[in-house]
This record gives sequence, C-alpha cells and structure tokens, in this order.
Amino acid sequence: MSSQIISLTTDFGAAGEYVGAMKGILLGINPEATVVDITHHIPPQDIAHGAFVWGSVCGYFPTGAVHVGVVDPGVGTSRRAILLVTPSGRFLAPDNGMLTYVLLRHGVRPPPSAAQFMQPVSTPVPEGCQAYSLTRREYWLEPVSDTFHGRDIFAPVAAHLSTGVPPEAFGEPVAEVTALNVLGNVVAEDTVEGRIIFVDHFGNLVTNIEKSILGGRQARVEVGGAHIEGVSRTFSDADGLAALVGSHGYMEIAERDGSAARRLAVGVGGTVTVTIKGSC
Amino acid sequence: MSSQIISLTTDFGAAGEYVGAMKGILLGINPEATVVDITHHIPPQDIAHGAFVWGSVCGYFPTGAVHVGVVDPGVGTSRRAILLVTPSGRFLAPDNGMLTYVLLRHGVRPPPSAAQFMQPVSTPVPEGCQAYSLTRREYWLEPVSDTFHGRDIFAPVAAHLSTGVPPEAFGEPVAEVTALNVLGNVVAEDTVEGRIIFVDHFGNLVTNIEKSILGGRQARVEVGGAHIEGVSRTFSDADGLAALVGSHGYMEIAERDGSAARRLAVGVGGTVTVTIKGSC
Amino acid sequence: MSSQIISLTTDFGAAGEYVGAMKGILLGINPEATVVDITHHIPPQDIAHGAFVWGSVCGYFPTGAVHVGVVDPGVGTSRRAILLVTPSGRFLAPDNGMLTYVLLRHGVRPPPSAAQFMQPVSTPVPEGCQAYSLTRREYWLEPVSDTFHGRDIFAPVAAHLSTGVPPEAFGEPVAEVTALNVLGNVVAEDTVEGRIIFVDHFGNLVTNIEKSILGGRQARVEVGGAHIEGVSRTFSDADGLAALVGSHGYMEIAERDGSAARRLAVGVGGTVTVTIKGSC
Repeated sequence: MSSQIISLTTDFGAAGEYVGAMKGILLGINPEATVVDITHHIPPQDIAHGAFVWGSVCGYFPTGAVHVGVVDPGVGTSRRAILLVTPSGRFLAPDNGMLTYVLLRHGVRPPPSAAQFMQPVSTPVPEGCQAYSLTRREYWLEPVSDTFHGRDIFAPVAAHLSTGVPPEAFGEPVAEVTALNVLGNVVAEDTVEGRIIFVDHFGNLVTNIEKSILGGRQARVEVGGAHIEGVSRTFSDADGLAALVGSHGYMEIAERDGSAARRLAVGVGGTVTVTIKGSC
Repeated sequence: MSSQIISLTTDFGAAGEYVGAMKGILLGINPEATVVDITHHIPPQDIAHGAFVWGSVCGYFPTGAVHVGVVDPGVGTSRRAILLVTPSGRFLAPDNGMLTYVLLRHGVRPPPSAAQFMQPVSTPVPEGCQAYSLTRREYWLEPVSDTFHGRDIFAPVAAHLSTGVPPEAFGEPVAEVTALNVLGNVVAEDTVEGRIIFVDHFGNLVTNIEKSILGGRQARVEVGGAHIEGVSRTFSDADGLAALVGSHGYMEIAERDGSAARRLAVGVGGTVTVTIKGSC
Repeated sequence: MSSQIISLTTDFGAAGEYVGAMKGILLGINPEATVVDITHHIPPQDIAHGAFVWGSVCGYFPTGAVHVGVVDPGVGTSRRAILLVTPSGRFLAPDNGMLTYVLLRHGVRPPPSAAQFMQPVSTPVPEGCQAYSLTRREYWLEPVSDTFHGRDIFAPVAAHLSTGVPPEAFGEPVAEVTALNVLGNVVAEDTVEGRIIFVDHFGNLVTNIEKSILGGRQARVEVGGAHIEGVSRTFSDADGLAALVGSHGYMEIAERDGSAARRLAVGVGGTVTVTIKGSC
C-alpha cells in the first residue's frame, strides 16, 4: 500500500503562514508528493466538525493515500499524536476524536454508555487496522514547537510515510484510540431518539441515525418543533422540510431551497425523534 | 490533444466535503492528474457569475486541459450534462449556461431576440468544436446521487478524459447547447445601450459592450446617473470613475482606488449607454 | 539550484479570475511545475502583511523553489519588478518591500535612520544573493496589461525560471532593492522600545524585537496599557497575557484562549516597551 497523495484537513484558515509552512515541509521531504487541500476552514478547534468532514471525504481517495487532519486544541499537552493505518488509507491526527468517523467506517462501535454525547471515549482499534503513537523524534522537525505540531510532527511524518517508510518506524503500536461518542441513540420499541452531529454549509442537519436503523420502514420525524412524514429519496421530492438519507449513510433534515438549520434554529446536539410506523 | 491538467470551478465554498470528494475521485482514476483549483467561491447557484469567471480564466491554460465547471441549481432534474471539446480545451458542465463565454470565445453568437437578457437560449455548437451529452453511466460513480453530480458524474468523466478516453465514449453528440443571452445590446445610429454582465471583486462593472463596437472611436458613457467622457487606456489614467476595455475584451466601468459598484449602486443587469462621438 | 516548485502568495482573494489565470500561464510554460498556494488572502494592498507571511513561510520550502509574491498597489507605475536569488530560494516580487523579511533572513540590515517605521528604504542585496530587475520582455506575456503583472510578468518569468532559464536572462543585475524599515527600535541602557509588525489570525501581536535583544535575560513588557512580567516559553505557560519568542524569532504578545489584539486594542505600529531586568 503506497501512494504519493497527501491530503490536508485543518482549521488553520486561509491566512497562509500555517498551511504554507506544512506544504513546504511536505515537498521538501517528498518532492514527488501530490499535496491536496481538502479544507482549511474547519471552524476553529471544532473537532466534531473536522472529524465529520474528514470521515466523509477520505473514502473517495485512492487506497493508501496519506490523510493529515489537524484540529488540535490540545497541542503542546500530553495528548498523543496517532497514525492509523486502515485498508483504505493512512490517517495522521491528534488523538482527540478527529478519527471518529474513520473508525466508524471501519466497523468499530464505541460503547454508548461510556460517555455523554460528543464526549471522547477510548475505543479499540478496528480489526484489520493498526494504530501507532508517534514518538520517534528522528522523523520530526527540530526543534518541535509547543504550538504547531501540524508543521513540526504531522507534516514530516506524512511526507516520510508517503516515501515508503513503514508505519511501525514512527512509534509504538497502541490498542485503543479516542473517538467521540456520536452514536448514543436512545432506542425504544418503535422510536429512536437521535442527535444532530453535523450541519453542512447548506444548513442541512445530519443526524446520528444510521440508514440501517430505518431499514426501509416508514417513519415520522420530529425535530425543532416540526414534524416530517416519511423519508424522501431526493431533495427534489421534498416539499419544504424533508428527511432523507444522505450519501454519508445518516438520516439528515433538509429544506428545499433553504436552510433547515436556520428555519428550525437547531444545531449540533439537537434532538431528533423518529417514530417507526411499520414497513412500507 | 491531451493534457493531465484538470481545473475546477464551483460554488461549493471552502467547507471541503464537496471539493475534497471530487479531488479524491479525480486522483483515484488518474493519479497523474494535475488538479488545479480555479475557485470554489462562485456565489451559490449564480450561473452568470460562474460562466464569466470560467470563460475568463480557461483561455490561459494549455491546450487540451480539462475544465470542470459546476454551478448546478438544476442537479437531479432532466438538465443535460455536457462535454464541449474546443481547439483550446475540454469543458465539462451542466447545460445551463455555464458554457456561455467559452462559446462566445469560439465565435458563436446566440440570437439576441431569442431570449431576454441573461436568459438561457439554445445555441449551435461553434464550428471546430464538438459537444456530447453525458449518458454513458459506465464512466460515472455508482450509485449516482441526485444531489452531487460534481462528484458522481463530472469528476469521474473528467478523470477518464484526462487519461485519454475519447470524447465520443461518454455520450451522444449534440448540435446545440445552452448559452445565456448576454449580448443583446440595443444599437441605434450613434448610441449603444448595453448591460452589466459581471462585477469583479474590486467592484469594477464589466459590460456586454465589446471592444469592436467602440472601434477606437471617442465615446461618452452614462451609467447609474454618472457621465464619463472618453474611454481610458489604463486604471492610472483615470481620475475617479473611468471607462476602459478590460483584458476580457469588454468595456468596463472602474473607480480608481474605489468600487464603482458601490459608488454607483448598480450591479449585474444595470444599463450602460454609450454615445459614440466620432472617430478620434 | 533547481526545483519545479512554484509557490504563490497574493492579495487576489478567492474569486478566481486572477489566481486561476496565473496557474494557467504557469502550467502552460512548465507542465511539470508543482504549483503551491501559500495564500491569496493577504489583506488587499497590505505589503507589510504580505511580506511577513512570505518571509515566514518560504524558509520551509526546499532549496531552489520559486516563490511569487504579488501584493502590488503600484502596478503599472515605474516600480521595478525584482528577481532575488538566495541560497534558499528564488523570489519574484514587485520592488515595494515584499522582500523585507526574505532580506532580513539573509543577514541584511536596512539603516534604521533612513526611513520612518514601515517606510520603504533602499537596501543592499545581501552577500551570497543576487538581484535582477525584470526587463526582458521576451519572457513576458504579450501584450502586458497595466493592471495585472502577476499574470503577465511574474507568472511567465516564474515558469521559465523553474524550467532552468538562468536568472541573468530575465534582466539587469541590481545592487539595491527595497525593504520596509521594520527594525528601527529605540534602544536605551536597559530598555528597548519596539513596534508591532504583524498581527496573526489568532490575534497574537508580533513585535520587531528580536530574540537576540532579549538574550535570555529577564524582562518586563509594557504594551497597550498592560504590563507583563517575564518572557514565557510556551502558550500554555501563560496565564492570560504573555510575552514569548515565536518560531519566527521575534517576541510576540499572546493571550491564552483569546486575542491579544482585541484585548489590548493595538495593531501594527503599536509601541511595545521592554525593560531588561538583568540576566536570569
């Protein structure tokens, strides 16, 4: 598994001192690298947002691509830096929940009782994947700052990884990594109480209710004081507010030609109740 | 005609879920591609704006580059997806007017009476160019969403095209494509009544009055209640408001060290009257 | 010294007509170039800001990379266009101060008395470097506009340079180039009065007081009416406002989990007084 592609997802904004320095480091170590900006506009220090975008996008990249995800409010503290190797790609991030949706895509289920909604919880590395704690300083920039590990640790490790240095060279294997508890739904006989986990830039409200929970059955959805009958197939089927399953596999609430987030005045953490009405 | 360059022009913003996924698809199919961001900040669903930017920029790229332009309010409806092959490049876009200025640059003139200003009008494919309606699903992502053809259709087709798949493999030839009616000037003996077609980020007002109409003659320009005597050669010749011919070949109204759009409070669609005063 | 990397730092914004055209020109002349966006969000026409970002980032790039920096309020006037060749990279910019921090990194010291703070001053080209005034039009786009030398001069020269055309082919050697006077501190026996030269996007206030002036001694810092005792090692050492030496080598004022710029209501040009209290 090898690829020269290195993708970048950060909250560093457009100003350039930060992202530019990372790109310089990457290309200095691996001049053949294809550096791809995913986004640098994750809301500052919003790990949950960054994790969702990262998890949504990386699946479209070629196998073996190196993905760097830096939303890192704990930089300079003792939080670990992680390399997660999966069958689909190699992921570098602070161990703060950035890996949440990458882990979910590889089958891991964090225990819902272990933490409150969106709180970090220690989670086993999924089968078929390996994780390493980055500790080998010979692959880091010298000196390492306390404020900018994107440049000093993640960029040089990503570049060396893309040139073929094996994952185990960068640190010790670890058995558990951190995920945010995003799946803690309350499920009763015929109702599921879920939460909003992401608001996209159209104002669509993505919930933590997975496609498999709906299972093709008819449902009634309650969110922000509004009621929606049935789950639509597409945006254009919708008349005003609609519930549908997005390409990420979660149920979302959308408003045709508008913003569901603004209309309903709800955001991440908001409650969504689905009443299952039998198979259709 | 071949090139590994694939440029992207969209209204997807900086958030990253959308552009990042397209880049992943492109590089998965053609790892050798050079993916170039033109902009992802076209105002949402503003086809006229996107078409102008696209037409202004693509001419500077090497022959054979693949240009993807996605401003697509009609995604999921029956609007066609088009591949236009020209001597200078290969253009992929929804058939909604995004191709307007690319078509104009290749000599086509949509009939001015066929539609109101800025309305779509069916236009013959220019001589020396070929257009195809994208219908061959074997080059698309599976399944195709109803909401994101940038990722599911345009990105994979662009990537396959850049690897050398011939244009006719992607669908049926078509004789007409859609252009916006941007050239409908009212021309009398010594006056031309034009319209503003684009406002750039300095607030310069680009009109649909082409350089050839002025033909080096002296003119008096009336716009937003202001009068401008003569057409200047450069910005620095201007004293306050000025009319000059921009590098795109259209007359524009600029304010030195300021924004003509703000000062005159006019925008796209605003009227500009030129009185020709004889040759100079 | 050669590299296919061409970095871009501009104030052209995200709109795309300008940056996109430059990328097209670059790739047309050198299809093998690796074009890297540093930022296009320098505040419009803010040379001091652009110069600082450029100087901070370029040092992280491989030797020989070509760096294009276009913040150019004097475009179309008689200001020169410069190519500066240093042991670490090749720099193309208008001769208006954009090169300030690149010159400082190579040891040059503009005479502090020659100009007021942040005013341009003619400065000798540092030892080991060579500068050229771009005059050879055969490497420019034809015709050259009066409004957009980024596209018409800097992009084609950068591309030809990256393909191996020697620097002296582009114009005449010059002995002096323009730097902004950013180092004019007032130094008395035990105090240094410095100025703020840059505000980063976290609101940290970077001063022109170099690490070497502090020389590891204890100090008391006065800025915007606030007093700070001692120079901290890291952000996390700070309790509220802190002074520390950033990775760029200058003392900066930061507020933990906040913005020092907003709290103190000071910006570029603001005064910072350091009282040296003896070695520690």
